[in-house]
Amino acid sequence: MRVAVIGLGLIGGSFALALKAKGIATTVVGVEANPQHAAMAIELGIVDSVMPLQEAVAEAELIAIAVPVDVIPQVAIKVLNRVTESQIVIDMGSTKEELCEMISLHPMRHRFVATHPMWGTEFSGPQAATADSFAGRNVVICEKSRSAVEAVERVEALYRALGMDILEMEAEQHDLHAAYVSHISHITSFILSTTVLEKEREEEAIFNLAGGGFDSTVRLAKSNADTWIPIFTQNKYNILDVLREYIHQLNLFRKALERDDTVALREIITRANDIRKVLQE
Amino acid sequence: MRVAVIGLGLIGGSFALALKAKGIATTVVGVEANPQHAAMAIELGIVDSVMPLQEAVAEAELIAIAVPVDVIPQVAIKVLNRVTESQIVIDMGSTKEELCEMISLHPMRHRFVATHPMWGTEFSGPQAATADSFAGRNVVICEKSRSAVEAVERVEALYRALGMDILEMEAEQHDLHAAYVSHISHITSFILSTTVLEKEREEEAIFNLAGGGFDSTVRLAKSNADTWIPIFTQNKYNILDVLREYIHQLNLFRKALERDDTVALREIITRANDIRKVLQE
Repeated sequence: MRVAVIGLGLIGGSFALALKAKGIATTVVGVEANPQHAAMAIELGIVDSVMPLQEAVAEAELIAIAVPVDVIPQVAIKVLNRVTESQIVIDMGSTKEELCEMISLHPMRHRFVATHPMWGTEFSGPQAATADSFAGRNVVICEKSRSAVEAVERVEALYRALGMDILEMEAEQHDLHAAYVSHISHITSFILSTTVLEKEREEEAIFNLAGGGFDSTVRLAKSNADTWIPIFTQNKYNILDVLREYIHQLNLFRKALERDDTVALREIITRANDIRKVLQE
Repeated sequence: MRVAVIGLGLIGGSFALALKAKGIATTVVGVEANPQHAAMAIELGIVDSVMPLQEAVAEAELIAIAVPVDVIPQVAIKVLNRVTESQIVIDMGSTKEELCEMISLHPMRHRFVATHPMWGTEFSGPQAATADSFAGRNVVICEKSRSAVEAVERVEALYRALGMDILEMEAEQHDLHAAYVSHISHITSFILSTTVLEKEREEEAIFNLAGGGFDSTVRLAKSNADTWIPIFTQNKYNILDVLREYIHQLNLFRKALERDDTVALREIITRANDIRKVLQE
């Protein structure tokens, strides 16, 4: 299969590497606005060549869009404007509602499959891409009924070949759940980092004492602004809803601690422990 | 060396196993109020026997106290009331100020070395103990000048033999830093868990979408109330200070998102990214 990947960062790069490693892609052509990333992607063997969008789309059977979510809708429309009935377009973004609305009435909408592979790290750029990242993860496919049956089947087969499990959701539902279980975690980590860096002027102390659980809790604070600001603004209302609830519950905890109310603290922690039932590891 | 470990949970159990694995302890006697934990500790080979405190102390060269931090001061005093000039007592708790004050004028204070091995997991009880957990971690020794030089030397040699690096701090300084880099992380995780469990009634969705960074950020929410409530209340003022700053900064983020102020969001995220310099992994 000839594949074009638009956006050669962590996700696009990992997807290209995985398709090559599994022998699914015969050639991978990249589209990348950043010339350093483009050169690096060729050097790292992520893509065979880098081309302008129009040429890359013309040559590909599958076109995967892996740019920041604020740019996905316009790239998706430009690609759909150029595809034929034999081509398939997917995106790999972390929000879906805006995209699905923007392309909803496009005459080639049925050639598009909206997907979100549930994987990422705090690192970015082609140098962060790895070939086996998607295996064992879930991929969400949104608004499946708007895509051609044969296109969905081929995309599902491809993700399954990468070792992924397929979930199906409407776009609204996806963005709501993603706010709860992914987007809010990034915000709590970013703010944990700014708080500790603000309060803790002795960086040495952070480093030395960081065995106490800080490392994993703050890990996502290393994540890239270019990726995450568009996600936060696109999923603003869901995220604000969770964020307000989070701040409210933090204040309840704070007040319980202020008045030494160990009964209330125990009640909060015991409820929090229920996450054990959800996350078994 | 004959060692007594008081409190056979995650930390005490791991310490006992490590001392045995390294051949440092010839015998390890346990003191444990929970009869199920006591039986389990014997069954798992963590201790050779379980005895009442008085007998365990009488037989040991080193007595390690690994009970919840609210109980450490009274156990420390009971142990110090019984030790001779040839015995050494350590604690392994996550707070130090209260303890160091409580034992400060005890005539056997110099036989006590206040330590905090910077390691833990979200699991608890003897079944969570592992032999190689301390290796590569830091251990903080507080108020070193209040302990006999020879006692400190032996304790440091022992921790070094377990592969740990030694840090030195005053008790106040320790509790302040621990609030920043360990205690606050547990609170942000507990509240992330209660928030998501409150808002997200579909547990299936949490589980399915949890590849997006939620898992690591919420991991500490599995931690035990019996361990953490005493830490929070003992280190209340430092923790409240960090918690108020954290809530303040979350509100700044929320307001920036409410008004689509991407300049402010970028400024926050870029500052948060500075944690990369501190945590290299």
